[in-house]
Amino acid sequence: MGLFSKDIKTMDDLFVHTLRDIYYAEKQIVKALPDMTEKATDPQLKQGFKTHLGETENHVTRLEQVFRMHGAEAKGVNCPAIDGIIEEANEVAGEVEDKRVLDAALIAAAQAVEHYEMTRYGTLIAWARQAGRDDIASVLQKTFDEERATDKKLTSMAEGKVNRKAA
Amino acid sequence: MGLFSKDIKTMDDLFVHTLRDIYYAEKQIVKALPDMTEKATDPQLKQGFKTHLGETENHVTRLEQVFRMHGAEAKGVNCPAIDGIIEEANEVAGEVEDKRVLDAALIAAAQAVEHYEMTRYGTLIAWARQAGRDDIASVLQKTFDEERATDKKLTSMAEGKVNRKAA
Repeated sequence: MGLFSKDIKTMDDLFVHTLRDIYYAEKQIVKALPDMTEKATDPQLKQGFKTHLGETENHVTRLEQVFRMHGAEAKGVNCPAIDGIIEEANEVAGEVEDKRVLDAALIAAAQAVEHYEMTRYGTLIAWARQAGRDDIASVLQKTFDEERATDKKLTSMAEGKVNRKAA
Repeated sequence: MGLFSKDIKTMDDLFVHTLRDIYYAEKQIVKALPDMTEKATDPQLKQGFKTHLGETENHVTRLEQVFRMHGAEAKGVNCPAIDGIIEEANEVAGEVEDKRVLDAALIAAAQAVEHYEMTRYGTLIAWARQAGRDDIASVLQKTFDEERATDKKLTSMAEGKVNRKAA
C-alpha cells in the first residue's frame, strides 16, 4: 500500500482492494482466535470461539472462491484497521486479572472484530450487486450472515450470564 | 496502557477504560472528518460529513457528561483500533484518483468508523444497564442511535447515486 500512488483507478480496483483487505483480516482472525479461546473461561464463550474459528477458516476459503469467480489473484493487503482492533484486544485482555471480567472484555473485543467484518462485507456486497455480479454478492452474503449471527450470539452472552457473573 | 499491568480489576474498571477508549476515538474522528469533507465530491456526501462533524462534537460533550455522572475523570486512552481504521481510510483515499471512486471509498471508510462506534457504545450500554445505571445507559443510547442513523444514511448513499455514478 502507498508505494505506488493512485493505484486504485476504478470501482473494480476498489472492489479487489477491499476484497484483499478482508482476506488479510480473516487470516489475522484465524491466528487470533486460538488465543482468545484459551483465555475465555465461560464454557459457552470458549465453545463459541472454537465454532467461530471453523467458520472463519471457511470464510477464507469462500474469499478464495470469490477471487477465482472475479479472476483476481487471491492475496492480502495490509489492513491497519484489523491490526489495530486485534492489538487493542490483546492490550486490554493483558490488563485484566479477574477471569470473569476478562470474559466480558473478550466478548467486547470479538464484537469489534465482527462489526469490522460486517461493514466490509456489507460494502463488498453492495458493490458486487452494482457491478451486476449477483453471483459474487450471494457468496459474500453467506459470510455476512454468519458474522451477524456470531455478533448476535455475543450480544446475548454479553447481556446474559457472562457479564452478570462479573458484575 | 500496558505500563502498569493488570490495571483492570473490576467490571467498573473495564467500563471506565472502554469509555476512555471511545472518548479518544470520538476526538480522533473530530480531527479526521474535515479532511474527509474536503475530499468528498458528491454534495450530499459532503453535507453528510459536515452534519456528522457537529454530531461527533456533541458525542464528545455527551461522554464528558457520562464521565461526570459516573464520577470518573474525562480522559482518553490510546485506541489502536480507531487509529488503524483512520490510517486505512487515509491510505486508501490516497490511492484513488477518480473523484467518484473516491466518494465510494470515503463512504466505506466512514461506515467502518460508524461500526466501530456502534460496537463500543452497544457494549457500554449493556454494561451500564447491568450495573443498574439506566441513567448513563440512556445518555449513551442517544449517541448510539445517531451513529446507527448515520450508518444507514451512508448505506443508502453507497447503494444509491454515489456508487452508481462511479460504476
